[in-house]
Amino acid sequence: MNALFIQNIGQLVTVDPARMTADNPLGMIENGAIRFENGTIAWVGSAIEINRVDYPNSQWMDAHGRVLLPGLIDSHTHTIFAGDRANEFEMRLQGKSYLEIAQAGGGILKTVQATRQATPEELSALTLQRLKRMLALGVTTVEVKSGYGLDFESELKCLRVLQALRAQAPVSLVPTYMGAHDIPPEYQGRTDAYVDQVCEVQIPVVAEQKLADFCDVFCEKGYFDVAQSRRILETARQHGLKLKLHAEEFCDLGGAKLAGELQATSADHLLHVSDDGIAALKAGGTVATLLPGTAFYLRIKEYAPALKLIAAGVPVALATDFNPGSCVIDNLQLIMALACLQMNMPPVEVIKAVTIHAAQALDLQHDRGSLTVGKRADAVLFDIHSYNELLYRVGSNLLTDVYVAGQHSSRQQLEAQLQPVT
Amino acid sequence: MNALFIQNIGQLVTVDPARMTADNPLGMIENGAIRFENGTIAWVGSAIEINRVDYPNSQWMDAHGRVLLPGLIDSHTHTIFAGDRANEFEMRLQGKSYLEIAQAGGGILKTVQATRQATPEELSALTLQRLKRMLALGVTTVEVKSGYGLDFESELKCLRVLQALRAQAPVSLVPTYMGAHDIPPEYQGRTDAYVDQVCEVQIPVVAEQKLADFCDVFCEKGYFDVAQSRRILETARQHGLKLKLHAEEFCDLGGAKLAGELQATSADHLLHVSDDGIAALKAGGTVATLLPGTAFYLRIKEYAPALKLIAAGVPVALATDFNPGSCVIDNLQLIMALACLQMNMPPVEVIKAVTIHAAQALDLQHDRGSLTVGKRADAVLFDIHSYNELLYRVGSNLLTDVYVAGQHSSRQQLEAQLQPVT
Repeated sequence: MNALFIQNIGQLVTVDPARMTADNPLGMIENGAIRFENGTIAWVGSAIEINRVDYPNSQWMDAHGRVLLPGLIDSHTHTIFAGDRANEFEMRLQGKSYLEIAQAGGGILKTVQATRQATPEELSALTLQRLKRMLALGVTTVEVKSGYGLDFESELKCLRVLQALRAQAPVSLVPTYMGAHDIPPEYQGRTDAYVDQVCEVQIPVVAEQKLADFCDVFCEKGYFDVAQSRRILETARQHGLKLKLHAEEFCDLGGAKLAGELQATSADHLLHVSDDGIAALKAGGTVATLLPGTAFYLRIKEYAPALKLIAAGVPVALATDFNPGSCVIDNLQLIMALACLQMNMPPVEVIKAVTIHAAQALDLQHDRGSLTVGKRADAVLFDIHSYNELLYRVGSNLLTDVYVAGQHSSRQQLEAQLQPVT
Repeated sequence: MNALFIQNIGQLVTVDPARMTADNPLGMIENGAIRFENGTIAWVGSAIEINRVDYPNSQWMDAHGRVLLPGLIDSHTHTIFAGDRANEFEMRLQGKSYLEIAQAGGGILKTVQATRQATPEELSALTLQRLKRMLALGVTTVEVKSGYGLDFESELKCLRVLQALRAQAPVSLVPTYMGAHDIPPEYQGRTDAYVDQVCEVQIPVVAEQKLADFCDVFCEKGYFDVAQSRRILETARQHGLKLKLHAEEFCDLGGAKLAGELQATSADHLLHVSDDGIAALKAGGTVATLLPGTAFYLRIKEYAPALKLIAAGVPVALATDFNPGSCVIDNLQLIMALACLQMNMPPVEVIKAVTIHAAQALDLQHDRGSLTVGKRADAVLFDIHSYNELLYRVGSNLLTDVYVAGQHSSRQQLEAQLQPVT
């Protein structure tokens, strides 16, 4: 039996709904302790309840009064791609339009070309390095979408790389098929024909080969409209995939209503969600996944109505949206700061949004997202005295230790694994 | 002789004014190499010019095509203080006013109390840990202001701690005396009496004991007006201190004009600087030090007019303003991203703002701020392929190696020195 006790935890922030009260909104235990056995949380409580002699075969770790949280979860990323678009960044600062950038050889098609040309080994190495960077920031579960292949072969290549990484990466990886991320260059002006391809060719194979847990669609003006999005998601559901939707990022197209109606697991972005859309999310049990890094990176002055969604009783998750164009931010801690500073979210809601609500956005709330007996032993220790400090101190990675399925790594060990990609 | 050659530098970004051209605005050398001898830069050039056999006694390092920059310089911080104000952060998000926070025991006076009560040993340990975090982000020179003591004894205590750290910290430290950071509680309503104390008691001792290089004043409505600021700065100059000024953060009081007239080394903040103020800075040779982290952290929607200052020919520096209340951001790389995303500064100007212009803001441009023969061998290596990537990838610390006066530390070594403060 592999057993570990962590003692002397200044604040053990369980985020366990069963422990949450109005006075203790994160189910926090002061001077707490936690026991992991065989990768699972076996016991959670107050340090004074423990008699060390009762556990002769445990390993013991001293948290020195620091703060323990559930492993952070990044539930929306586009982490598998090749190439970079650093030159575009400067063009955007100069006020160049999307079209001008595309005409200069930039934009998403640049990433699609590089991703199509990359070998599985190259994609695997790039993605693994990115996942390790996220882990060194305390993220133990990462959703990753395909969608830079945009043809059958390249989408499958990306999803197979993700499947292989799922077994070998130091974080948990949740793969999402997103063939409908954009209209491929070969299908310009023929979106319906591409939707046929997605529904009739790609989804059946992705589902049969169990290459993804979720299907996601970019439902937006100029991309996939509500009817096309519905067709793709309904097909995906028939084939056993769970559903996500990029909705109302640039305008209120009705994606949130569709997501709620289909009881999608999450609807993401939501900058322009209407009151009807919010009601549909609530009725459908759909998580609202907000991505403030993208508005920040694109210098849009509007953000999703986080407080309104919370007030309506919709579970709000936060994620990076990490991708090579519109949000080159892989740091979930920075997204947490943006949620406070740009969306006015209170620290308590921000912490729920990257733990229990993020788990719900991946339909994994039974298994992770809180420090609850029986759940996977994913936890992160920070060198702070109160969880508020995690939001108060912006831009510092204060992580000291990570536990993934009960396996411990120190910050130094995580950093040492970040070999430069040269 | 202690000699080191770094070879195979993909982009050697010298930021050397003598190498800058319209086509090469950062004086960048592709496939560059650099030689350090006894803590100083001895040679800079193209890797192909080097014949390795000519240097039999050098140590050689391979940069693997990565990007080398001058060590970053954070020219405005308030890094020496005790205590934290994490609880206030949430109050501010809830819309509580400065007065309400102060009445609840928060605000700057909370930091003043904690700093007065702290022992020199405590202050030294806290400050050293913060400086090590900055170094792990590539910052090799840090200006630190006193100003949370606000009485003679406590100001001297802080400055003496800084003097001791100057000899032992792994970064270069530039101490600034800022007794006029706020009106001490003992002098409420008697600002002129405190200015007497600063001018007649504090400055002479600080100068005589060589406890600071600069004197700085918070010139702002409700703090020190232009006449009081002038009196303090003129006294400081008579005693041999160099001058800085916090100017036009909340309104256009005329601080920039004063700074320019006195030929202060820098004027800092400048959100509300007028055209006359800009002209005065230009005429006085005064660096404009912009602190976008503070507007971001305080959620002010206005930023300093960076592009206007640049267009007027004023050298623009960027710094963190790291402090426990209005900007709890110790990460200069994040400030660089904010400069792009919130102030529209091009990457080239951002890099100058944390190297050569930041050196000028500390009157150290003869000694550092560019990779120029004869300057101190402070340099930082990043795991990127072009310097644009440093701005494009937001929130990732891509540093791999630091050289401080020619002494090499790997990222892993820097992280290993970040012992948690428990």
